[in-house]
Amino acid sequence: MTSRRQITGFSNPTVKAIRALRDKKHRRRERRFLAEGLRLLTDALDAGHIPETLVLSDARDPHPLLEALEQAVDHAGGTIVETTPDILAKITGKSNPQAVAGVFSEIDTSLETIERDAAPIWLVAQALRDPGNIGTMLRTGDALGAGGLILIDDCADPFSVETVRASMGAIFTQRLVQARWEEFHNWLRKGDGQLVAASLRDAQPYRGAPYQAPCFVMVGNESRGLPEEYENACDLRVTMPMRGRADSLNAAVAAAVLGYEVLASLEI
Amino acid sequence: MTSRRQITGFSNPTVKAIRALRDKKHRRRERRFLAEGLRLLTDALDAGHIPETLVLSDARDPHPLLEALEQAVDHAGGTIVETTPDILAKITGKSNPQAVAGVFSEIDTSLETIERDAAPIWLVAQALRDPGNIGTMLRTGDALGAGGLILIDDCADPFSVETVRASMGAIFTQRLVQARWEEFHNWLRKGDGQLVAASLRDAQPYRGAPYQAPCFVMVGNESRGLPEEYENACDLRVTMPMRGRADSLNAAVAAAVLGYEVLASLEI
Repeated sequence: MTSRRQITGFSNPTVKAIRALRDKKHRRRERRFLAEGLRLLTDALDAGHIPETLVLSDARDPHPLLEALEQAVDHAGGTIVETTPDILAKITGKSNPQAVAGVFSEIDTSLETIERDAAPIWLVAQALRDPGNIGTMLRTGDALGAGGLILIDDCADPFSVETVRASMGAIFTQRLVQARWEEFHNWLRKGDGQLVAASLRDAQPYRGAPYQAPCFVMVGNESRGLPEEYENACDLRVTMPMRGRADSLNAAVAAAVLGYEVLASLEI
Repeated sequence: MTSRRQITGFSNPTVKAIRALRDKKHRRRERRFLAEGLRLLTDALDAGHIPETLVLSDARDPHPLLEALEQAVDHAGGTIVETTPDILAKITGKSNPQAVAGVFSEIDTSLETIERDAAPIWLVAQALRDPGNIGTMLRTGDALGAGGLILIDDCADPFSVETVRASMGAIFTQRLVQARWEEFHNWLRKGDGQLVAASLRDAQPYRGAPYQAPCFVMVGNESRGLPEEYENACDLRVTMPMRGRADSLNAAVAAAVLGYEVLASLEI
């Protein structure tokens, strides 16, 4: 029972509601988020995520991937909105007539949804404030064959348009967890799992360190790094060479350099 | 002969001229750029870069690093502008009374300014469009002990506020070059230098590849990657494991993972 609607007015409540999903407060309240672009929506579909609402331009050219999206939304009983290029540009911020946007229901990010043995590597980020860094970590996790990204404490919203875009589709393929430190740490210690921090204090070289699966690779806040208490709770603290003046890498870069070292070390 | 000025008007031409440096067109015309924040300006000073103009809040608390900046500008005969927190916030976009901004003359980015044997690793980016990626590559280059970053073809402006900020001071410590491909390639082949691309085509695993110093690690545009012609001109094409759905890493992440592998391989 698909609903297909033609909307031509900027002040239409559906248009307003979709556009409002760019704002965190509305995302939280609606428990929905926005993803934009044909490639991203196709990645979502391939991973089994079908938008509740698909927004298309009424000036679009035929495209097999667009048609596949429409069919999937049709079958799932979702809503397809056709609108003018101007209104679509207002929603997506892009003036491309092939632009497309989808509204997705928020993904469950509770710790109970993940199975630690499902993957040899998991990425963990504490109080990461940059939406781009979170998206980049999701993308890196996908490349590493990680199970997902666990966001500890007060991170930027992982369902923001910026994060979804930077994830290059990995928001739909990587598991995503949001948890407080105590909750995560208690969960971790109830089973196997090596917690490894990229750290400067009392750390061993990251090359050749004794990594073990499932390995949880943790990086801290962009300015402050990890709290000392969290570092102390780690099984392993490792450090990358710093040959210049700075004492740290970008958080998403540190996670990637360390994650690829773990991948090679585990020989998987 | 320092000039010290007190400015309290938003429409003051000096304030307008400094604020205009947030805009690429004005930066290009003035051949100057803006850096913000006490840490960044202190990093600049440590690397021997003294701002032509230093902008301070007249409501600031005393701070030894601020005083060191003032002294350096004094000695160099630069201009110190004291202004209200409101005007400073308009320049820097931050409402912190400890905020500080400096205007620097543009750094010479011609290929002739670098000496290839000055470092074992150089980073190269082709048509990189994201200012944050360029800043992150500079920061990674500093950590790797790289000589600098060579920007090929039409990259984002490396002197934008976003790039300077993401570089975490490395804009002042890494050499920065802007060149067309032909120019760079001709220069490279006139001496030693191994050109290595992160690539998917006809590539060998990045672990254990025969890297040689000086090693030029090249990544391509965020969407299109490197042109085939450029990849073919490389001495080595290497690939990182891609265990998920995506076929690429973020460009700055790829440069870092590959750069750290080169560093370990060269055993330096």
